[in-house]
Amino acid sequence: MTSDLYPVARLAAAQEATRRAGIDALLLTPGPDLRYITGYEALPLERLTCLVVPAAGDAFLMVPRLELPAAEHSPASRLGVEFVAWEETDDPFAHVAKRLGGGVARVALADRMWAMTSLRFRDALPGAEQVLASSVLREMRMRKSPAEVAALREAGAAIDAVHAQVPGFLRPGRTEREVGRDIADAIIAAGHATVDFVIVASGPNGASPHHDLSDRVIQAGEPVVVDIGGQMPSGYCSDSTRVYCVGEPPADFAAYYEVLRQAQEAACAAVRPGVTCESIDAAARRVIEEAGYGELFIHRTGHGIGLETHEDPYIVAGNAEPLAPGFAFSVEPGIYRSGAHGARIEDIVVCGEDGGERVNVRPRELVVV
Amino acid sequence: MTSDLYPVARLAAAQEATRRAGIDALLLTPGPDLRYITGYEALPLERLTCLVVPAAGDAFLMVPRLELPAAEHSPASRLGVEFVAWEETDDPFAHVAKRLGGGVARVALADRMWAMTSLRFRDALPGAEQVLASSVLREMRMRKSPAEVAALREAGAAIDAVHAQVPGFLRPGRTEREVGRDIADAIIAAGHATVDFVIVASGPNGASPHHDLSDRVIQAGEPVVVDIGGQMPSGYCSDSTRVYCVGEPPADFAAYYEVLRQAQEAACAAVRPGVTCESIDAAARRVIEEAGYGELFIHRTGHGIGLETHEDPYIVAGNAEPLAPGFAFSVEPGIYRSGAHGARIEDIVVCGEDGGERVNVRPRELVVV
Repeated sequence: MTSDLYPVARLAAAQEATRRAGIDALLLTPGPDLRYITGYEALPLERLTCLVVPAAGDAFLMVPRLELPAAEHSPASRLGVEFVAWEETDDPFAHVAKRLGGGVARVALADRMWAMTSLRFRDALPGAEQVLASSVLREMRMRKSPAEVAALREAGAAIDAVHAQVPGFLRPGRTEREVGRDIADAIIAAGHATVDFVIVASGPNGASPHHDLSDRVIQAGEPVVVDIGGQMPSGYCSDSTRVYCVGEPPADFAAYYEVLRQAQEAACAAVRPGVTCESIDAAARRVIEEAGYGELFIHRTGHGIGLETHEDPYIVAGNAEPLAPGFAFSVEPGIYRSGAHGARIEDIVVCGEDGGERVNVRPRELVVV
Repeated sequence: MTSDLYPVARLAAAQEATRRAGIDALLLTPGPDLRYITGYEALPLERLTCLVVPAAGDAFLMVPRLELPAAEHSPASRLGVEFVAWEETDDPFAHVAKRLGGGVARVALADRMWAMTSLRFRDALPGAEQVLASSVLREMRMRKSPAEVAALREAGAAIDAVHAQVPGFLRPGRTEREVGRDIADAIIAAGHATVDFVIVASGPNGASPHHDLSDRVIQAGEPVVVDIGGQMPSGYCSDSTRVYCVGEPPADFAAYYEVLRQAQEAACAAVRPGVTCESIDAAARRVIEEAGYGELFIHRTGHGIGLETHEDPYIVAGNAEPLAPGFAFSVEPGIYRSGAHGARIEDIVVCGEDGGERVNVRPRELVVV
């Protein structure tokens, strides 16, 4: 699976993209950019691990000596790049600068590189302008390969299996935290490597889009927003939201929930190559605004997903990027009535040749438990 | 507990330290620096959340509108700073620059700020030199308060309770991964909020200091290095290593294990105010070198610990920083015989007025299971 998901040829493609972007070297510290190119899930440590991809010449991996065995057993060993192990009292930044030689005018940093690292590179390469690795890698990372789409489908099926169990966890008298603990266990049991987030937002907490868990006791008749996700062993992430109601819902809630469901359908139906990201946002927003709830939809419609839960492309007003086959992102409009309740429906959608494919297939109607 | 662990007065102290350091503003994005000052465990998102502490004038918290309810319910609400909510299509970086006004010559960034954020601040504040927040906060963060020491003791007791259960998990025929799963469950059951790492390194895997888990089946007579830790709900971290042997150990292993135990004791006994970090490293290293195993001790002796598992001060050659009361760090020498086995013994030590206090108290002798 590693060789399909993390093909060795990506390194050469990244080097070519680096050269075309007029960048002298790509500097990838642990995180999604490094994993995308190497398959290596390196520990994010204060000690420097960094794949250095010069525009010309051989790439190499700087690695702390005590991480060397882990690196050698990782998929990065397939790449045929030199592993340069540094000792506890060495200066690995000076070493990178020396190997790159003079005349480095521009380097691209992993988007999630820590300031404690980027400022060391700034000092070690004082003439070099720093830009983001996404300026080189975002096109590659946005267009998911068939193996990546398969990994997202696998993640979608895993989180759908968790949602299928949620009605069994929800009942009046339980706290959000108790329900959340059951869900977290189910996320792992469904095959995820990690639990990334568990939102169980009951009643008025549902009006805060990023509420997570509290000791609030769920009451009869309350809507509960359940937004959950994790990372699979493949590295690819799941993220899906459904709304449950413990007993019959309030009438005003039922009315806007149906509007929301139609808005989410409209946005998913609008997905096809060439359509802009902002027009997907607009497709959902239009339905909600026309029903008079526009003020209550307080966030963008979605975010890209892959090795990160949130990555390019963002489905937001102002993003005129056209969709292309392989783009994968969430479609998750919401309506939030402050002090009362809220709702959000979320699927991950992959843009195909003719339209979108949803990797989440659980029913989107309100689930009355 | 919040008010003791995260006192409101820290914000004023940070502002004073910022002014003294000749820095115009401290910019704290989600992570340990922000949590230290505010108690707020903000989500690390691509949307900007940032506490801005100008050297003069009022601090404010930039927060995405949809995080506003979470921020308002967080301990940050105790600080009396303005929360500036920004909308999805706003530019929060431009907003920060505008509020800071002209003449910003130097800003300090949270050490873990992502490049995707620090480069946006660089562009929004083009005249400002960027330095690390640790240049302002490290002195404060290194000297743990009595409440922080209590939180580290609580974390130490929790991880000790897990080590007490490890002999029950280890037996020949089980894989490292199976044992690791039991340990991870026990880490949560012992009161941690998250599992940060679980190293179960059997036989030859013990010779790789950062080996984590594999499907290797544990054999009779093998030493197993178990290095585990997590983060407590308080935010403070645990980290402790013990070595177990499934049956009687090989003779060469038993010999160097005893040397290691003495080295770890010597380093712990050397802890007192005024002694340098590097001399603690040297105290452990000397014992190992004199016994002829110097080449096999391939890493520094320890790292600071608090809101991060690895933070200042580092117990490493070249670090002449003198210890002071409240400094908390690991003492974890190791001996690694490549291809055969390895060992490491680790306690968290807090420097007191007269000497060190170990927050981990499990027996340090080899545990034969």
